[in-house]
Amino acid sequence: MARIGIIGSAGRMGQAIATALADREHDLAGGVDAGGDAASLADRSDALVDFSSPQALEANLHAAIGAGIPLVIGTTGLDEPHHTAIDNAARDVAILQTGNTSLGVTLLAHLAREAASRLGPDWDIEIVEMHHRHKVDAPSGTALLLGEAAAEGRGIDLTANTESGRDGHTGERAAGAIGFAALRGGTVAGDHSVILAGEQERITLSHAAENRMIFARGAVRAAEWLMGKPPGRYTMPEVLNL
Amino acid sequence: MARIGIIGSAGRMGQAIATALADREHDLAGGVDAGGDAASLADRSDALVDFSSPQALEANLHAAIGAGIPLVIGTTGLDEPHHTAIDNAARDVAILQTGNTSLGVTLLAHLAREAASRLGPDWDIEIVEMHHRHKVDAPSGTALLLGEAAAEGRGIDLTANTESGRDGHTGERAAGAIGFAALRGGTVAGDHSVILAGEQERITLSHAAENRMIFARGAVRAAEWLMGKPPGRYTMPEVLNL
Amino acid sequence: MARIGIIGSAGRMGQAIATALADREHDLAGGVDAGGDAASLADRSDALVDFSSPQALEANLHAAIGAGIPLVIGTTGLDEPHHTAIDNAARDVAILQTGNTSLGVTLLAHLAREAASRLGPDWDIEIVEMHHRHKVDAPSGTALLLGEAAAEGRGIDLTANTESGRDGHTGERAAGAIGFAALRGGTVAGDHSVILAGEQERITLSHAAENRMIFARGAVRAAEWLMGKPPGRYTMPEVLNL
Amino acid sequence: MARIGIIGSAGRMGQAIATALADREHDLAGGVDAGGDAASLADRSDALVDFSSPQALEANLHAAIGAGIPLVIGTTGLDEPHHTAIDNAARDVAILQTGNTSLGVTLLAHLAREAASRLGPDWDIEIVEMHHRHKVDAPSGTALLLGEAAAEGRGIDLTANTESGRDGHTGERAAGAIGFAALRGGTVAGDHSVILAGEQERITLSHAAENRMIFARGAVRAAEWLMGKPPGRYTMPEVLNL
Repeated sequence: MARIGIIGSAGRMGQAIATALADREHDLAGGVDAGGDAASLADRSDALVDFSSPQALEANLHAAIGAGIPLVIGTTGLDEPHHTAIDNAARDVAILQTGNTSLGVTLLAHLAREAASRLGPDWDIEIVEMHHRHKVDAPSGTALLLGEAAAEGRGIDLTANTESGRDGHTGERAAGAIGFAALRGGTVAGDHSVILAGEQERITLSHAAENRMIFARGAVRAAEWLMGKPPGRYTMPEVLNL
Repeated sequence: MARIGIIGSAGRMGQAIATALADREHDLAGGVDAGGDAASLADRSDALVDFSSPQALEANLHAAIGAGIPLVIGTTGLDEPHHTAIDNAARDVAILQTGNTSLGVTLLAHLAREAASRLGPDWDIEIVEMHHRHKVDAPSGTALLLGEAAAEGRGIDLTANTESGRDGHTGERAAGAIGFAALRGGTVAGDHSVILAGEQERITLSHAAENRMIFARGAVRAAEWLMGKPPGRYTMPEVLNL
Repeated sequence: MARIGIIGSAGRMGQAIATALADREHDLAGGVDAGGDAASLADRSDALVDFSSPQALEANLHAAIGAGIPLVIGTTGLDEPHHTAIDNAARDVAILQTGNTSLGVTLLAHLAREAASRLGPDWDIEIVEMHHRHKVDAPSGTALLLGEAAAEGRGIDLTANTESGRDGHTGERAAGAIGFAALRGGTVAGDHSVILAGEQERITLSHAAENRMIFARGAVRAAEWLMGKPPGRYTMPEVLNL
Repeated sequence: MARIGIIGSAGRMGQAIATALADREHDLAGGVDAGGDAASLADRSDALVDFSSPQALEANLHAAIGAGIPLVIGTTGLDEPHHTAIDNAARDVAILQTGNTSLGVTLLAHLAREAASRLGPDWDIEIVEMHHRHKVDAPSGTALLLGEAAAEGRGIDLTANTESGRDGHTGERAAGAIGFAALRGGTVAGDHSVILAGEQERITLSHAAENRMIFARGAVRAAEWLMGKPPGRYTMPEVLNL
C-alpha cells in the first residue's frame, strides 16, 4: 500500500488510474493537470504515474527527481528530446516509460517473440487486430509492437517484410513476410492475434481487452514494481520478469 | 443410390468427387476429360457433375439434354454466353450451376443475410478470411459472396460500400461500410468469418474448411437433390431449402 | 423520444437502463423500488421497464393497466402463477416478458435454429460458453436457450439429447446429441458459441458481450417497439421481426 | 538427406511418416511391422522411427544399438519397464520418446508454461479442446499435457487443481483451478486452446491441426535432429531448442 500521485488526473486514463489505485488499496496522493504543481504532488507521494502530455514531461521529471521517487510515464507522442530527458532523469530516479501498459499485451509480445524464434521460417506470421469504429489508423500501434516482437524473434527487419492491407491481385505471399490485417467496428476496445501458420497446423496467440481499465491496472502494477528499484530506465517486460 | 458421371474426372475436384460418390455409396458411372465423349457417359448415368472447363460447356449441356438427365456445373470462369447457354438448356433438364458447392458456405451466406437484415445499420459488418500462402488475390471469392449476402440483407450496394485492405491513415470507418480483411499463410483450406459489431456486443458467423472434399461432397449432394426435379435452373440455397 | 419509467431503478440493471435511456434520448420518467408507488410512476410514463422482483409483479401489472401503457418485464424467477397474471394483464396492455433482453443473443438463437434446421443430423451441435469466475452454475441460461433453439430447429427434445460436462471415459459422441461445455474465468461478461461440425467443415455462430449494458439497451429497444402495439403478450424475437 | 527406416510402417502413422520422409527428400530405408526384422532394417538406415507397439520395443531398441543409430519412439501405451529399457538403451544411442510429436503442440506447451509463470495467480487458466465425434475420452491427452505445462509454470500440482467437465450447480470457480472442457463433433483432427483470463483482459494460446500429418512431420524432424547427437534420452522440447 503506497501513496501514488496522478499527473493528467482529469483525463480518461487518469480517472481509470484512480479506480485502479482504489482496487489495489493504494492511497491516491492527489492529482494534477496542465499547469498544476507536480512538485508539490511529488512531495506527498511514494510514486507518480504520468498520463499527461509531452509538454509537461520536463516539469514532471524534475518533480520526481526533487522528491526522489519513481515515475511511470504512459504519455504518448514523445520525441527524441523527450527520450533524452528521460534517460538523463533515469540517472537519479527509477523511470518506466512505455506506449502500452497492459500486462497481457506485454506478455503476448514476449510469447510472439518466443514462437517466431523457435519455429522456422516455414511458419508464416500474420497479425490481425480489431478495434472500434472510430479508430483512424491501421494497423494499431499494438499490432506493430507485436510485429516488432515477431520480427526480432525471427531475426528479420519488420519494415522490409511487412505485408499490410492485402487487396486485389496481391500475388503469392512473400516468403518471410509478416502480414497485418485490420478490422473495425462497434465498440471493441482492442483484440489482437498473432497467427503462425505452418504445414497443416496453426498456432494463434491472442489478447482481448474488455475496456481501457487494463492499461490503468498495468500502470499501477508498474508503479508498485518500480518502488525500491535503483535509478535507471525500465521497461514493461521487466515488470513481468520477462 | 444412383449412377453418376464425372466430367473433368482427372482434375483435383474430379478425383475428390469420385471419393465423395463412394462415400455416399453411389456408382461412379464413369469419367471423361478434355476431348472425351460426354454424350456416351450421359447415356449410362442418372446425373452428371461437371468440373471441367468453359470450353467443354456446350458439349456437356447437349449430353445432358440428349440423355434427359440433370447436371451440376461447378466449372469456374463462365461468361455471359455460357450463362445464356445454361438458361436455354434448363428448359429441357434440371441444372444447378454455382461457384461454390460447399453446403456450409451456402448456409453461412444465408445466415449472414438474415443477420444483416434483422440487425440495424448501427451494427458494423466485417468479413475476414484466411487462406494458404499460395493464394494470389484478396478478398477470396467466397468472402465476396458473403459480402453480397450481407449487402442484400441490409439493402445496400456492396461495391459502393466496400472497405477492403485497410492500411495507414484510413480515417474513421464509414457508416454502412462492409469491411474485408485477408490473411494468408500455411496450408489453410479456407476460413471465413462475418462479424457484426454493435454497441458492446458482437456476433461472429464463421465457416472453416478442413480441405477441398467439402466442395466435392456438396456437388454430390446437389446432384442427388437435382434428380427428379423438373427442368429449370437451380441454386445451392435451394438444395438446403433456404 | 418517450417518457419511460424504471421499476427496480436502484439495482444494477435499473441503473444500466437509465444510461441506455439517456443514450437513446428518452426521458427518464422516474424510478421506483421495493415499496415504491408504481401506479403514480405509470401515470407520468409512456412505457415501463421492470427489473425488480417477482413479489412486485402484480402491483406493476396493475400500474401498467391503470395507465394503459406497455410494460417490459425482465425480472427473473417467475413461476406459473406469475405467468398467468401476465397473460391476464396482456388482455389490456402490451407486455413483453423475457429472460434475456439482448438483441444479439435473440438473433443468435434464431440463427442457431435456422442452421440446425437446414443442415442434416450428420452435423454435430456443440455449445460452449465462457463467463466470469463467480458464476455458480453451468451451462449458462443463455447456453440452454441456444440449445433449445437448436433442438427446435432439428425437431428433437433437448433434455433427452443433452451431453454436458464431458469428463473421463465418455464413449463416442451420441448421434444427435447437443453438447455443452462451460469455461469460467476472469471478468468475462458472457461469450457463447454454437458449433455445427460436419464432415471436414465447421460452422460457428458466436456472441460476445462486453458488459451488461447490452441487456439494458435491448430492454429499451423492446419498450420502444412495444409502444403503439395492441394489447397482447410479445417476445424478443418479435422485436427483431424474426 | 538421410536413410530412415520405419517400424510400424503399415499403420496409419507409418504411412504418414513415409509421406513426410518424401516431402523432406529423405530416403525411405524400408519398413517393418509385427514380426519383421528390425535389426536388418537398422543396418541399412541412418535413423529409425518407431510407431509400432510396446511388445516390439525391446527388439527395436536392440536393433538401434546394434546398428549404432538414433531412434525416435512415438509408440503409446508404454509402462514403467518400457521406460527403464529406454533409459538403458539411451546409454548407447540417442533416443527420443514422446507421446506427441507435433512441433506446434510442443511449442504451445512451452508458451503455456511461460504465460502461467509470468502472470500471477489472479489469471484463471482454462483449457478447451475439440476433437472428432469418435473420440471416447475427455480431456484429450494433449489437453492434459498442456495443463501439466501450465501447472508447472504456476508451481502447482495439476491433479489437485483440476476442474473438468463443469455441469450443474458447480459453485464459484476455485482459486488456482485449471479448468478443462471438451467439445466433440465432426471430423476435427484436434484443436486446443489455453485461456488465461484476468481482470478485463484475456490471453488465448491455440493450436489447430488440419490432420495427422503434423505428427509424422514432427517425428521426421525429431529424427533429423537426433542424428549426430551423443547417446542419451531426449525430448521434443529440445528439438525446438526450448
